Order: sequence, then structure tokens, then C-alpha cells
Amino acid sequence: MRVRVGIVGCGTVGTGTAELLLKNGHLIRKKTGLDIVLTKVADVDWERPRSFEVPHHLRTTHYTEVIEESDIVVELVGGKGFAKQVILEALEKGKHVVTANKHLLAEDGKEIFLKAQEKGLWIGFEASVGGGIPIVKALREGLSANRILNIYGILNGTTNYILTRMLEEDMTFDEALAEAKRMGYAEADPSLDIDGWDSAHKITILATVAFGKFFPFGSVHVEGIRQVDLLDVELGKELGYTLKLLAICKRVDSEVELRVHPTFIPSEEQLAKVSDVFNAVMVEGDFVGKTMFYGRGAGSHPTASAVVADIIDIARNIAGGIRALHPFYWEEEELHISSNFYSRYYLRLDVPDRPGVLAKVAQVLGDNGISIASVLQKEKVCRMAGREGQSVIPLVLLTHKAYEKQMRKAIEEIKNLPMVEGHPVLIRVEEEKL
Amino acid sequence: MRVRVGIVGCGTVGTGTAELLLKNGHLIRKKTGLDIVLTKVADVDWERPRSFEVPHHLRTTHYTEVIEESDIVVELVGGKGFAKQVILEALEKGKHVVTANKHLLAEDGKEIFLKAQEKGLWIGFEASVGGGIPIVKALREGLSANRILNIYGILNGTTNYILTRMLEEDMTFDEALAEAKRMGYAEADPSLDIDGWDSAHKITILATVAFGKFFPFGSVHVEGIRQVDLLDVELGKELGYTLKLLAICKRVDSEVELRVHPTFIPSEEQLAKVSDVFNAVMVEGDFVGKTMFYGRGAGSHPTASAVVADIIDIARNIAGGIRALHPFYWEEEELHISSNFYSRYYLRLDVPDRPGVLAKVAQVLGDNGISIASVLQKEKVCRMAGREGQSVIPLVLLTHKAYEKQMRKAIEEIKNLPMVEGHPVLIRVEEEKL
Repeated sequence: MRVRVGIVGCGTVGTGTAELLLKNGHLIRKKTGLDIVLTKVADVDWERPRSFEVPHHLRTTHYTEVIEESDIVVELVGGKGFAKQVILEALEKGKHVVTANKHLLAEDGKEIFLKAQEKGLWIGFEASVGGGIPIVKALREGLSANRILNIYGILNGTTNYILTRMLEEDMTFDEALAEAKRMGYAEADPSLDIDGWDSAHKITILATVAFGKFFPFGSVHVEGIRQVDLLDVELGKELGYTLKLLAICKRVDSEVELRVHPTFIPSEEQLAKVSDVFNAVMVEGDFVGKTMFYGRGAGSHPTASAVVADIIDIARNIAGGIRALHPFYWEEEELHISSNFYSRYYLRLDVPDRPGVLAKVAQVLGDNGISIASVLQKEKVCRMAGREGQSVIPLVLLTHKAYEKQMRKAIEEIKNLPMVEGHPVLIRVEEEKL
Repeated sequence: MRVRVGIVGCGTVGTGTAELLLKNGHLIRKKTGLDIVLTKVADVDWERPRSFEVPHHLRTTHYTEVIEESDIVVELVGGKGFAKQVILEALEKGKHVVTANKHLLAEDGKEIFLKAQEKGLWIGFEASVGGGIPIVKALREGLSANRILNIYGILNGTTNYILTRMLEEDMTFDEALAEAKRMGYAEADPSLDIDGWDSAHKITILATVAFGKFFPFGSVHVEGIRQVDLLDVELGKELGYTLKLLAICKRVDSEVELRVHPTFIPSEEQLAKVSDVFNAVMVEGDFVGKTMFYGRGAGSHPTASAVVADIIDIARNIAGGIRALHPFYWEEEELHISSNFYSRYYLRLDVPDRPGVLAKVAQVLGDNGISIASVLQKEKVCRMAGREGQSVIPLVLLTHKAYEKQMRKAIEEIKNLPMVEGHPVLIRVEEEKL
């Protein structure tokens, strides 16, 4: 069975995908019995250097040629405008689609998935989350017997690299970002990564797969790592926690918490040990318990591995004559996005070094129903912050679980206490469920 | 579409599978559009207590009733004799099969897979390796575009629990085994686990999936952890290594190393951090690079998650009218089992505390083409071994990579040195590729 594949967009991932199809085509034929043939690759610029030379007879500058000559169209343009046009045109012409476009799927996924469903066509998007890690397949198939309870992901390599350098080498955020740029791990404009948007796109896609429901992207709570202070990374380490940019999808009764923010997790947890540019996703299901999937979350070759896995799956379905008829959108139950998270908190305040301050702060927290789990030893904090003998020192405490609204109210009151200087630092802490 | 499922063998996993199908059946219907119905469960003893009560109308003591009334027969009897009969009879009668039986598949898999193929029937065996971790699916589908290079697995929860207790709490092997029994993690006769056979069964199955070739089980090199001395666990820790019972499937040119043995791995590696009863499999593919899959490797619910994932996959194929025609046995290339491993080594000898001994040992190693990477400081070793001031002390060294045959020859010569007392301890060290 011969299946024709064309690629639109020959950047890093497009080049890797062409390379994989050409280099491992023979192996894939042996493994699957399928003859997957790369027929055309479209890009507007064939002059720029690439890590693999796409044979001349496969090159074109017209994406419509790719759609015309393929059974499966691989969209690797990225972004929302033109990429969306390519996908919708391909579907309109009866072609199956594979894409790595998290931005588009997280924001306009509903329109695209419903169009594919209406046409009975397959749409593969494994490469949109976690690079080479087969996490979408795991959620849809490997763990399909489970009610998914929670997903915790380290889904962005750039930010994980930066936080790893801060933790392990005491770099400030700016120093670590500069190094990430030097290493080619951060783009010239890194805001999509470091402000959390990339992670937010990915967790939205995973939430859709896990719960069979499209969540509006605007409802995801997103905070990045730009404001992270090295001092808090180090104080957290003292307390036994590692700071990660965690993407969280958490079921609490009939609500779902969807959020991305710097998070302290216990340093002995498997997720805390995911360092550098690696990604990992921890999934908890009602029967399987905790599972974790780990690997390279980006890069030409790992992402191509995911793209071609999707191509093979769709080619199998084409060969078997199976149309994609069952709705992707199954919505297990009425699940609403929660806006009032329930979590533990790490709180750091700048206060004068005199008796009674802690009592005052504790009272405000207590009045708001928040109880303190532990207070970090003053001498240690002062030493780490370089504030020995100063009159204003950092007060660090860890709370028990509390609702975010209560916590925010308490913070407002604490900020208004006459002895508190500057802006308190608040970092969420996740444990137990990880 | 209605698909009938029957279970033969209602032990821990059978009970969990029945529970899952009955509790999450509605959810699975919503997710997949498939009506998967549990029609019958066979067991010889319905009196013994179970964690979940199988409804009376589903119970039978005749496995033939299960085969008769099912489209998919789930074999959860275990062992080789009767289980094999059930599977072969089911296939003969045109029924698809799901099994968790690693013992049977590792030893007689070829006969069973070829029979299923001949009949165009599906056989699911996700639950045979790694409990709830969807590792078989990852190798067959998620990473299908890759040439698989290496697989490193912590595939047995009992031994990992024992080694974790030894490492973290300085227990001896016997103490840790006793605790594993108390916790219900080790069976009364734990030899299948602690002597490495269970891990060997599982790595044989993964090797078959990865390379499309049936390797004779007898050709797997198997060593267990019964002889592991706490002293070596602690000395390894000093050197920055963690001792694990590692199942290894490693491609070296046109040969495959298939082996299970206690192995030192660098403590900062992700696999080294897999503790207690958890399992993990690290897979390296030519495009995806390193990936890791982690979760509970045993237990009623996690294993049921894998069994039912297979049931859902096969039910989808039944609904789509897809027969299993493509051979499971695709054999990418001529791959032979290697008998001469290439690895680094940790060596501990009991020698008299006098000058010239190290020089003598180093000379024997050198004569055999083995070079020493490092020697552990004498005082530290003596202190840890409680041999301060004694005349016979442990000498610990780490070699560079060498062929096993050379190493064994060197060890024979070293044993014959007049100053060496007792039997040298030799532990393989894996790094770089992990």
C-alpha cells in the first residue's frame, strides 16, 4: 500500500521530517508493510542552509502542489495565519493532516478538529506537545481505560534550561537566559517561552485530549519565569523544593484547574529531576496511578520522530480503510475551568528585624483561614540573602493548603501592614499528587 | 458496536480488569464509541477473597464458556501450561487474545504470535511488561519511525524495592528481602524476581518488539541480586553510582546484547532515581534520542489499565474490520545475540595491606588490555568495610571499557595471585548511552 506524504514548511522540523522519511523509509516499510513516499516539500526559501539537503526534485515553492500530490499533508509552517489556511485547504480537499502547531491547535483547535471530523479525516498532532515523547498517544490510547485525574508537565525546554542553570549554578535569571541564547536554546525574542505561553498552549492541548473537551485558551492562567529571583530558587532548595515552570491540568470535583506558573515541587519527586532542555509529563489516572513520560521536547530529529509516528498511524488507517468518524470531542462530563486554585504557598516578605513581626503576619494569614506549615530559619535566610545584621530581612514561610482567593486577600492585607516593604513573593507549591 | 470480552483467571490482575471494565465502561463508551461488554470470567475458585466482587452472573468455572461467549479472550492465568492451552484454543476458535503472561511470551512467543498471524487475529500484551506503563505501544507505534538502538529497563519492582532499601537505609540483602515480604512486594518464593528471570522475560519481549525478531530466551544472560553485598552498594554510592538490576537490550553493530544483571549507573541519571517498586524503561532511538517511560510496574489496577488499553485497541480494529495481517515478525536485519559484552567494570578484591599489591593487579589487567579509570581511596574503603587497621583490606577499582572475555580472563589470573583472598566482586557499569 502506497501512501503519499507532502510537507509544507521546511524549517527545523520540516527538514528533520524529510530526512527521517528518506533515511528510515525502508525500515518503516519492513516494520509496517506500508510504502510511505515523500512526494513534495514546499518552502518559500530554498537558499538558506539546512542540516539535511532535501533532494531537488522534491522541492517546490507552491504549497498547493503539496496538497495536490499527497494523501497526508504535514503542516510545519507554524503560527496561526498561513498555517491555518494550509490545514483547512488540505482538509477541504480530502487530505489527512499532521501538524506540530501547538499555537494554532490551542487557540483554534475546535474549528480544525470539527472540520476534520465532518470530513472523516485524520489529524495527527503528537509533535505539538513534548517533541519526541509519545504523550498524546499515551493519553488517547495507552491510558485510554483511565479517567485522567491530573497532568503535570515540564513542557518547555528553554525555561527548564534556565531554571536548571539558576538552581545548579546560582546564575540569575538574566545570566541563565543569556546562556540559553548562546546555546541556541532560546530565541532572540524568547517571550513565547519564558512568559509561559508555549507551555500554556501545550497543556491546553493535553487537557483537550484527556477530557475530550475544548477549553478556551483565554481561560488558562499563565505566569512565566521572568520575575523569578535566584534567592527564592535557593531558599526553596533549602526547604527541599525545586522550582519548575509547571503546566498543570488538575481535576478537582467537577472543575479543572488549568494553569502554568513557577512551582515548587519536592526535590525527591521524579519530575523535579528533569533538568536542562528535557521535557516530561506526569499523568495520573484512576487505575494506572502515576506515570511519567520523559524525553527531548524539541529539536529537529525528536520532533520529526513524533511527526512520522503520526504519519505511520494515519497511513495504517488509510490502508485499513478506516475513516475518522468517532468524535474527538467526547466530553466525559460537565467540566468547568476553576478560577480559585487550591494549593500550598511559599511566601517571602521583606520585614524589619524585630520581635512581633511574624506574629502580625501569622495573624493576617490566620484571619483569612490560612495556616502556616513552617517558617524558614531567620539566620539561614539572612545569610543566603546577604542581609546579616541588616535592619530589613526576608521572612520566609510555607503555608498549608489554601484557596487562591483567600491567599490573595491575605497578601493585600499583608502588603498594607506598615512593616512590610516592597512586594511579597508568592510561589505555589505542589505535592502529594505528584 | 458491541464487543464481547471474557477473562480467564480471576487473580489480582483478572479482578482488577473486571473491576475496570465494569466501573469505567461508560467512560470508555464515550471516549471510543465502542460498547465493550464483559460477558464471562472464569476461575476455579470463587471462594477466596478478592478486592472487588465480580457479579455472580458473570462467574464460571469453565474457561471454554469464556472462549465461546467472547470476541476477545483475556488470559490472566499466568505460567506456561494451562495458559498456553487457553490462548491457543482461543486463537483456534477465531478469538482475539489479550495476555499479561511474560513468562509464556518470552519462552513460547514465536509459536503464539505466528499462530495469531496465520489466523489474522490480534494479540495484545502491553500488560506483560511494565504494568501500567504503555511501553509496548510506545515501541510499536509512538517510536515506530525510529531504528531502536538501546533499551535499559528497571522491570522488576521487587528487586528495585530491595536495592532501594539497601541504598537508602543501609539494609543488607536479607533484611531488605524480609521487608519486601512484609510489605507484600515479594512472594514467599521470590526466586523468579530476585534471580532476574522476571526481568529477563520482559526484556526478551521488548527486544522482540524493538527488533521484530524472536530471540531464544536461553540466550539471555541473567544474573540476579541474591549475591549483592551492601558494601558494594555503599562503595558505588561513594563513587557516584547507584546499583540497579538493569535489563539491557543494546545494539552493537550487527549484534544485540541481551542481559540482566546488577549494574552501576551514574546517580544523576534519570533511571538511577527510579526507586521503590516503580519501573522505568529508557529507550534510545536514532531520531528521538533518549526517552523514558515510568510508572507502577505491577499491581491489580495499573496492570488492568494496560490490559484494557489492549482490549480497546483490538475492539477498535474489530469495529473497523481490520484483520491483523502484517507480520509481527519483520526482522529489520540479521541481528545476532552477542556473548562478549563491552562495558566498564567495578572490581573489588580482598588483598593484604602492603605495598606493591595494586601494581600487581594493575599489571594483570594491563596485560589483558584493560585500563584502570580510578582506584577508590584505601582509607575510605577500609572505614566503610569496617577493616581499619586489618591486614586484609578491600581494593576497589573502576576500569575503562573492556570486553567481558578479557575481563573474565583477567579475573581468573587475579584470583590466582597469591595475595588475593576469596572471590573478587565484579559489577558492570553502564554510562554514556543512558
